[in-house]
Amino acid sequence: MKKRLQIFKIGGNVINSDNDLTAFLKDFAEVEGHKLLVHGGGAVANELMKKMGIEPEMVDGRRITDEATMEMITMVYAGLINKKVVAGLQKSGVDAMGLSGADGNVITAVKRAVKDVDYGLAGDIVAVNSRLIDGLLNLGLVPVFNSVVHDGNGLLLNTNADTIASEVAIAMSDDFAVDLIYVFEKKGVLSDLKNETVISEINKNTADDLAQKGIINSGMLPKLHNCFRALENGVERVFITGKDNFKKVQERGTQVLLNG
Amino acid sequence: MKKRLQIFKIGGNVINSDNDLTAFLKDFAEVEGHKLLVHGGGAVANELMKKMGIEPEMVDGRRITDEATMEMITMVYAGLINKKVVAGLQKSGVDAMGLSGADGNVITAVKRAVKDVDYGLAGDIVAVNSRLIDGLLNLGLVPVFNSVVHDGNGLLLNTNADTIASEVAIAMSDDFAVDLIYVFEKKGVLSDLKNETVISEINKNTADDLAQKGIINSGMLPKLHNCFRALENGVERVFITGKDNFKKVQERGTQVLLNG
Repeated sequence: MKKRLQIFKIGGNVINSDNDLTAFLKDFAEVEGHKLLVHGGGAVANELMKKMGIEPEMVDGRRITDEATMEMITMVYAGLINKKVVAGLQKSGVDAMGLSGADGNVITAVKRAVKDVDYGLAGDIVAVNSRLIDGLLNLGLVPVFNSVVHDGNGLLLNTNADTIASEVAIAMSDDFAVDLIYVFEKKGVLSDLKNETVISEINKNTADDLAQKGIINSGMLPKLHNCFRALENGVERVFITGKDNFKKVQERGTQVLLNG
Repeated sequence: MKKRLQIFKIGGNVINSDNDLTAFLKDFAEVEGHKLLVHGGGAVANELMKKMGIEPEMVDGRRITDEATMEMITMVYAGLINKKVVAGLQKSGVDAMGLSGADGNVITAVKRAVKDVDYGLAGDIVAVNSRLIDGLLNLGLVPVFNSVVHDGNGLLLNTNADTIASEVAIAMSDDFAVDLIYVFEKKGVLSDLKNETVISEINKNTADDLAQKGIINSGMLPKLHNCFRALENGVERVFITGKDNFKKVQERGTQVLLNG
């Protein structure tokens, strides 16, 4: 039987304040068994870029990454946030190891082809080095990924942390029974913002339906796309859940399934 | 017989321009056998801090590290420079892995005690996790250290990259025959700046003599202190050499010895 590996992704909203980050890391430390963490960090980077006189440029919710922005992303995501997370986990007794995609050649990407929009230094993942991740897990380490990847030819690229989580989950599914868990600020995908009613299961059919009715918004669709892609490629279970209810399987908010 | 491990430290002056960095990394890639790299990066951090309105404060050549400065150091050293170095090495076929002291708990430090001067978030190294470094080398990786370390209790601290190199060299000497090689902008320690005459050997006696005569300057003394400490604690050979002549033992500029 395959060993279980739990892959958690946390969004910027979970770690925007030092207090929130500390609380999350304490909970994450209590998760037993093999695990790894992927983090984003949008708001902090945007604030720092403003200080430096760099204005974040977005098209349809995606960042346009020029050279100055990429340097800032590398500093904030791979530097400040990643090391804060790693040092916080070490404090909680988790032997964390921070990784950009360049470290150990763990995630390789290609610069996104220019079609209607030139996204600049945005990367599309082409390979995940599961052998290295396996080697680090065997050393007792908990890998902590940020969204900076590389093209193997010296170029650093930015990519989407949700996609890193799903691609790493897929790559690790050959050797592990993988749970992929997206952790965000709500308890799960909500059917009613007022009552905070959590949808316990979403599948491909109900997702379309919910989107058409406007119950789930446009920001949730790319995340669900990553979820379905993971399930179609060997990942065992996928959840979208809250920062206060991610630790135990039975408490997690929304489970994403392929078929109802 | 112990296997050889070569530990290289490069200063800010070697990597201040992208061209210099690329040239160095290409040469470093050609060094055979087990190796690791420690980098500083002073000038880049200072420039960025000025842009952010943070004025670097120095006392006797040592940086005073307040919280804003430590965040900047973490961004620049552990983020921007470290990932540029790692991605550049990957391009040259070296399977590099960037490490701050927090990653894998590889270097633990304590905040420097306040005596005459409060250095702020400056760390003094107390432990190097040689077992982890050994594990990474066994995975075929080339560790790349920056100067950010942690106290194991969630606090990131800045330390001196020269000292990281010597402390890692000492820790690895139990299992390896270690060469410690300080690479800087000159060909070695010079006896005459005009003729660029390299002093081929320095030992504890000649070092005092050279310092008294003003032939070696105050910046070289802490580096030599790290060299002697390494030799007194199991490191086999120590060199101070140039960015164009570090690859081969017989070409290296100045060898540091304990006794003449």
